Amino acid sequence: MKSKVILLAHGSGGKATHQLIDDLLVPRLRNNFLSELTDSALLPVDTDKILFTTDAYVVDPPFFPGGDIGRLAVNGTVNDLAVCGGKPRYLSLSFILEEGFPLDKLEIIVQSIADAAGEAGVMVVTGDTKVVGRGSADKIFITTSGVATLITEAPLTIRNIRPGDTMLLSGSIGDHGIAVMLEREGLELKADIVSDTAPLNEMTARIMTEPGAVRFMRDPTRGGIATTLSEIALQSQLGIIINEEAIPIKPAVAGASEILGLDPLYIANEGKLIAVVAPDRAENILEIMRSCRYGKDAAAIGMVTEKSPRKVILKTRVGGSRIVDMLAGEQLPRIC
Amino acid sequence: MKSKVILLAHGSGGKATHQLIDDLLVPRLRNNFLSELTDSALLPVDTDKILFTTDAYVVDPPFFPGGDIGRLAVNGTVNDLAVCGGKPRYLSLSFILEEGFPLDKLEIIVQSIADAAGEAGVMVVTGDTKVVGRGSADKIFITTSGVATLITEAPLTIRNIRPGDTMLLSGSIGDHGIAVMLEREGLELKADIVSDTAPLNEMTARIMTEPGAVRFMRDPTRGGIATTLSEIALQSQLGIIINEEAIPIKPAVAGASEILGLDPLYIANEGKLIAVVAPDRAENILEIMRSCRYGKDAAAIGMVTEKSPRKVILKTRVGGSRIVDMLAGEQLPRIC
Repeated sequence: MKSKVILLAHGSGGKATHQLIDDLLVPRLRNNFLSELTDSALLPVDTDKILFTTDAYVVDPPFFPGGDIGRLAVNGTVNDLAVCGGKPRYLSLSFILEEGFPLDKLEIIVQSIADAAGEAGVMVVTGDTKVVGRGSADKIFITTSGVATLITEAPLTIRNIRPGDTMLLSGSIGDHGIAVMLEREGLELKADIVSDTAPLNEMTARIMTEPGAVRFMRDPTRGGIATTLSEIALQSQLGIIINEEAIPIKPAVAGASEILGLDPLYIANEGKLIAVVAPDRAENILEIMRSCRYGKDAAAIGMVTEKSPRKVILKTRVGGSRIVDMLAGEQLPRIC
Repeated sequence: MKSKVILLAHGSGGKATHQLIDDLLVPRLRNNFLSELTDSALLPVDTDKILFTTDAYVVDPPFFPGGDIGRLAVNGTVNDLAVCGGKPRYLSLSFILEEGFPLDKLEIIVQSIADAAGEAGVMVVTGDTKVVGRGSADKIFITTSGVATLITEAPLTIRNIRPGDTMLLSGSIGDHGIAVMLEREGLELKADIVSDTAPLNEMTARIMTEPGAVRFMRDPTRGGIATTLSEIALQSQLGIIINEEAIPIKPAVAGASEILGLDPLYIANEGKLIAVVAPDRAENILEIMRSCRYGKDAAAIGMVTEKSPRKVILKTRVGGSRIVDMLAGEQLPRIC
């Protein structure tokens, strides 16, 4: 009888590993590159420069409202490439599985990976599976690396940012972090809150058609928009002024954050981007964002300034202002 | 006071993560691509085709005679690229750390990664660090992905293999698996046995200078040479005859295998390759292998045949013969 759970033998590199690859992985992820099953995939890139990135996903629990670790692992890596001005092309997929993890759950996750890859237009071309004994890992960890080609000849770099540039945010904040948190804690207000995990490469490609208009992009995941904005201010040596009122947030997410004592500025997003754009093109780019599937709630949230270099200033709803710093401790472990 | 162990905050994406990256990782791994610290690294490849691979490393214990998880994670991925005919260029590095893992041990591992990357001539260009709570992972897991350019225009594929081709093995078998096993079990015979973890890209580049002479290569890691030979036989639809007597094995490794009840044909190697080569070039290629730092004990161990398709036949020392199959269960979990 075939096992219904992951065994140590599935990580041996021998027969059980081959069976897992042939029965569960390849049929769902099939493409000409993966099917070769060599140690490395040989890939056309048709360019002399590539973008390359990696991320580990350890989200707890692996299934949450709006997605699962598989969808997250594809979208997260796709987005890291997209915000650097890339057209994501190829993904690698590396599993670390705990002995005893149910095979039917792994099937669902692999199907999610296949669906997410299909939506984003990328191919999973190479992979690896390791199994560790019970108690040596928590259910399932996935590392995805990705390769992209560049959409435009000139890469987006933080050195492109100019004082006066407009800060755009592609939608509401905190959805992913709060959805995972409520699921993990088994709290009841979760009905309306789902993760925003989504591929952003359609949006980034569409807003980059006008050369130079988009200066820089980043996706505010771990640490939330506060941390991402702080990174941009620090690395650009410029200041950023943000209007609290302009930041989109769903009422249910705002309410849950308040109940949980969390600041939504620091909560992870998995389908949002911050774009720094030329001020005279901001309105136009915002329109394009809003016409994208994952950009309906996009908003202009602030601007770049020469004043207060290396700092992010938040203009509060009540008319005050405060400095926003990077996340200091860890408010929500294993959110992605 | 700075913590001496990994905290959950080190995986937050916020200040502590930045500090870990700036203080511990970047100074050791420094290069122009990594220092940009963007979501993706922008890399010149100067070619229209790349090789891409990934592997997770979960070896237990992370330190063992002859190496550690860091050196293993670099060499393993370098070798997956090298045996496909690649010149390894860029690595990504993804850590999953258990809360409480000592920072001084992480430093040693990162230094090992830097040293191994230097030896192999590759750069670590992008990375990620996640931290999970105590008991949710076992100390440290590393996933490395790698990008290579091709040494020769035509890639090495299993379809190149012809009946009559010679099977070369670059050195002795079982060293890595036995070294880790003895360390893990705290057994005393370990004095003479060290892991063979090593980069093979110098050797692969040198033996590939003659076009067409090397048909195919693979590195026999998990599952040992038995599993790798079985894979080659299955995928090429040809038979392979191996002479037991010709397979290099160190007496200490043979002895330890016997005591432990393990078949060295199935034990993992981390610095060996099997090359299928044109019979009239075999002697010459063997000479080149033996002149390489990690190929001194290289040997011709068998040949490809049209007889017994899809099977590996071992001619035993005493004159008999038996079929060698792929590893069925798991004899040594978490060996790499």
